[in-house]
Amino acid sequence: MTGGDGDDGSEYAVVVVEPETPGNVGTIARAMKNFGLSDLKLVDPPELREDGEAYGFAGHARDDVLPNADEVTFDEMVESYHTVGCTAITGEDARRHVRFPFRTPAELRDSLATVEADTALVFGREGRGLNNDELARLDEVCSIPASADYPVLNLGQAATVTLYELRDLFVDETQLPDVERERAVEADVERLYEQFSAFLDAVEHREHKRERTRRLARRLVGRAHPTEKEVSTLTGVFRRAARDLEEADLGRGPPDRG
Amino acid sequence: MTGGDGDDGSEYAVVVVEPETPGNVGTIARAMKNFGLSDLKLVDPPELREDGEAYGFAGHARDDVLPNADEVTFDEMVESYHTVGCTAITGEDARRHVRFPFRTPAELRDSLATVEADTALVFGREGRGLNNDELARLDEVCSIPASADYPVLNLGQAATVTLYELRDLFVDETQLPDVERERAVEADVERLYEQFSAFLDAVEHREHKRERTRRLARRLVGRAHPTEKEVSTLTGVFRRAARDLEEADLGRGPPDRG
Repeated sequence: MTGGDGDDGSEYAVVVVEPETPGNVGTIARAMKNFGLSDLKLVDPPELREDGEAYGFAGHARDDVLPNADEVTFDEMVESYHTVGCTAITGEDARRHVRFPFRTPAELRDSLATVEADTALVFGREGRGLNNDELARLDEVCSIPASADYPVLNLGQAATVTLYELRDLFVDETQLPDVERERAVEADVERLYEQFSAFLDAVEHREHKRERTRRLARRLVGRAHPTEKEVSTLTGVFRRAARDLEEADLGRGPPDRG
Repeated sequence: MTGGDGDDGSEYAVVVVEPETPGNVGTIARAMKNFGLSDLKLVDPPELREDGEAYGFAGHARDDVLPNADEVTFDEMVESYHTVGCTAITGEDARRHVRFPFRTPAELRDSLATVEADTALVFGREGRGLNNDELARLDEVCSIPASADYPVLNLGQAATVTLYELRDLFVDETQLPDVERERAVEADVERLYEQFSAFLDAVEHREHKRERTRRLARRLVGRAHPTEKEVSTLTGVFRRAARDLEEADLGRGPPDRG
């Protein structure tokens, strides 16, 4: 996959309008690289020095996203892209349309997945965000659901959350192994239950207790969706325990309990 | 809701182990306040000066979350909470269990919603994160899906994404208005279609074209789920346009086209 391309061929760019602190530009560049984007555009940015905070905060994005960032004007961006303005503060209700209706990042992901459109995700300056005149020129509004008591995220954090939520549009392959594939096969899980049952036979002589405990173990293990390694380790433990208990029992002669 | 309480009465804390830079502590405090948490615990933190970066990055969390942060030891935390260790790097497969199996933040949210347990979300130091000895003592592992090319998020960004994804456990009320309630009622939308149809009668005299255009308008508007304000505004526009066109037509006398 080439950077910045959505799965359907759409191109995605991140546009930051008049960022004030280089550190936030670096944070956004890093989030872009973390979630599979590369095309960063800046409207009237501060100077980004290689020994400054932008590069300091960018992690590995200092190698590509950040040095390849373009300067653009707001007009150029509006002309070239389907634009989504990100803002913490939405309209109170449907009477005003500058910031309403809006989509949450999750809703935006679902909606963008159904269209092929070169799209710019537009973030505003620190403190004041995008103003109403700017938002009025953008095609959609996106807002992150947060606490009513304090819904305003820092610029870099807002971009990080938005790109995280949209990641399926950009990321073909994550770092995470395929967990479903890693679940133990059912036959091995059944062997664990059998071995546990044999072990129980050696430690619990009351059949009704054994039955309850077998059921409890099946529920607990079933809920945890065990891996092959977990199942084989536990099967081995109960096998050894059952054998040792049996030998100890034989050594002792007939049971003499209570 | 008191801060830090989940909806079911579970208490949630965020624990940061040996943070190196005060700025990241401030970023995490801000994300906590944004997403409805208040109980911040720090293991061996740096000094957090009121005129330093922690307070500078914390936004309104400088008023409560940050000054109320407790120092704890790793041992105290493990003894008191169900612990979730957050890490970018998971086990490659099921053979090693220090970092495997893991849950994604979305899976963690679903799973924590079903139990009542005081839970600590544990984040590691910058750069190296939580080490294997630490993770081995924690109950669950959580990992954010990111690009295989560069999956390592900055500490503050990782905490922000995790708390964002878990927000439904902590936030009773977001800042966002209830959009479903804001959709125009169907009767008003139908009036819009009728008015648009009357308008079309005045501008398009070929019935088969009118029919197609009516259908197209219904599809476009239907997909957009219009608000009451959008519907009333557009209904008004088409009403006026139809009236003006009709009057112009009457003034001109019988049609004399082509």
